[in-house]
Amino acid sequence: VTRPLRVLQFGLGPIGLQTARVVIGKASTGHVELVGAVDIDEAKVRRDLGDLLGGHQKSGVVVSADVGLALEETRPDVVLHTTSSFLGRVADQIETCVRAGAHVVSSTEELAYPFERHPEIAQHLDMLAQKHGVTVVGTGVNPGFAMDTLALAATAPCVDVRAVRVERVVDAAGRRLPLQRKVGAGITEAEFAERKATGLFGHIGLVESLRLVAAGLGWRLDSVEETLEPMIAEHDVETPFLNVMPGQVAGIHHSARGISAGQELVSLDLKMYVGAPDSHDSVTVDGDPPIRLVVKGGIFGDTATVALLVNTAGLVAHAPRGLVTMADLAVPRAFATAPRA
Amino acid sequence: VTRPLRVLQFGLGPIGLQTARVVIGKASTGHVELVGAVDIDEAKVRRDLGDLLGGHQKSGVVVSADVGLALEETRPDVVLHTTSSFLGRVADQIETCVRAGAHVVSSTEELAYPFERHPEIAQHLDMLAQKHGVTVVGTGVNPGFAMDTLALAATAPCVDVRAVRVERVVDAAGRRLPLQRKVGAGITEAEFAERKATGLFGHIGLVESLRLVAAGLGWRLDSVEETLEPMIAEHDVETPFLNVMPGQVAGIHHSARGISAGQELVSLDLKMYVGAPDSHDSVTVDGDPPIRLVVKGGIFGDTATVALLVNTAGLVAHAPRGLVTMADLAVPRAFATAPRA
Repeated sequence: VTRPLRVLQFGLGPIGLQTARVVIGKASTGHVELVGAVDIDEAKVRRDLGDLLGGHQKSGVVVSADVGLALEETRPDVVLHTTSSFLGRVADQIETCVRAGAHVVSSTEELAYPFERHPEIAQHLDMLAQKHGVTVVGTGVNPGFAMDTLALAATAPCVDVRAVRVERVVDAAGRRLPLQRKVGAGITEAEFAERKATGLFGHIGLVESLRLVAAGLGWRLDSVEETLEPMIAEHDVETPFLNVMPGQVAGIHHSARGISAGQELVSLDLKMYVGAPDSHDSVTVDGDPPIRLVVKGGIFGDTATVALLVNTAGLVAHAPRGLVTMADLAVPRAFATAPRA
Repeated sequence: VTRPLRVLQFGLGPIGLQTARVVIGKASTGHVELVGAVDIDEAKVRRDLGDLLGGHQKSGVVVSADVGLALEETRPDVVLHTTSSFLGRVADQIETCVRAGAHVVSSTEELAYPFERHPEIAQHLDMLAQKHGVTVVGTGVNPGFAMDTLALAATAPCVDVRAVRVERVVDAAGRRLPLQRKVGAGITEAEFAERKATGLFGHIGLVESLRLVAAGLGWRLDSVEETLEPMIAEHDVETPFLNVMPGQVAGIHHSARGISAGQELVSLDLKMYVGAPDSHDSVTVDGDPPIRLVVKGGIFGDTATVALLVNTAGLVAHAPRGLVTMADLAVPRAFATAPRA
């Protein structure tokens, strides 16, 4: 009855390529199709996406370096945008998509709740998206789901909520090399301190998740406190990509707390390090009734970020227009998954 | 900035009274206020709700037996409707509210996904609600959250889903007497068989939850299979209200399976009985990645149903119009919960 959702993939790094692969794989369901792909990397431009995905089949989608031209030629319903974590670097890219009349679902971590860190960009994109009748939303597994949307959903059975605590433990040994490097696996404590001093180290989007939870519950925060410490390896850890020795950094322990009237209302605690023995996600609601929700083994991040992007694309058609958050969209769920015949 | 949401409570059984109590308790947040209450019970009509709630304070809300009059006098934004499990019995009540321009959030289990069991009523209410610019939705902890909305959310991190299994185990010993009776605690196996033969025994809404999950994932079901068996007490169970002896019925084991092309795509398994040793809710997604979500200790049903009603009322203002389901609304979360000052 409905025609397939037309998707353009903007950004062909590891996540973007995976996202394109998933969208192509779902074409057989008739719900979605990949119509375009954009990246500035000269090694990728003008190549068929099928080649970049290492397959033997052409996809029929050729990578373009010019997003404006690609938007004009392919007229996508939704752009899946995966180019940078930082909103300041990508606001122009998103604006171009919005002006072309496309919804934007972006992995830009700072877009998950942009109203505090980038109020002017947020206001501008919101106005523009409303004017063009489209929806812009930032999502992913974290920020976007594990430490915010899922935490909000965990409060749904409560008549009263006093505080929300979220914990995510990820064994980075099972993740890709860039992530292992990003959490500092194998560096020294001194190197950790140097990186931390740049202000660009740690998990991007943790404070955005915190603010998304607080805003979703209608809570104003007086202040947000953040801490970032190294997790130090206690024994040898071997991953497919690198080895970490005892005393070296295994990864990060990043936490954020939202305070109001001296009370800690929302706290997020994230440990991502190689060799973590007990990967899991948990939400503890100090409420009536109390809720203790656990995802055993945790939510596997790389696949889940791709999933959240594609699955959120399935929700934007009926979403409110403007710049919104995951708290404004319908309950997220898998999109275009055909059960085995 | 925004005025409080005006709520009318329709139905003052145990759940309705609790709901009214919660709404009154939230008035101090400035987000919501109880403006009316309706019940046909002569023992309740014309009494101040404060008296019925056993408090020493008048609420200022007097119970009316005439919903039409009450709607006209109080002009609520939302009616919280808690009068019956069966849509056929309450469609007129809902219609009256819709014609008065009020959103309806109802605990009627058959309304959680009414399109299969009551297609004509559903179509009529949908048309009417759209015409009057209001939203009608059925919710509660189950159906409404534990075995459907939460299950859908659990699939959000998946790029592929092959099957979804939901399990809910409730120790009915900690619940109110009507629920203990409803699950048959203390009756004989013969009495269980008699009740089962009436077709009105078991958990109402299980199939609605199943269909909500399937529809939310875009899956068509060829058939739905249901089984209802007694849980037999193996030892004495004492509750505040009754005792169950070994060999007597302790409660129900009710399950439903949604089948497509011979495959079991969605299965819901509910055990509600006195003495259940391990109350919990769990969702297992056979997907990529696999997800195993557990609510430890389970979601306490009576409070949670009240919470889902009140919290969903907080979502309807921005919901799509017409007769919708929980899968169409924004991610549910606690509403009007002021953190402790």
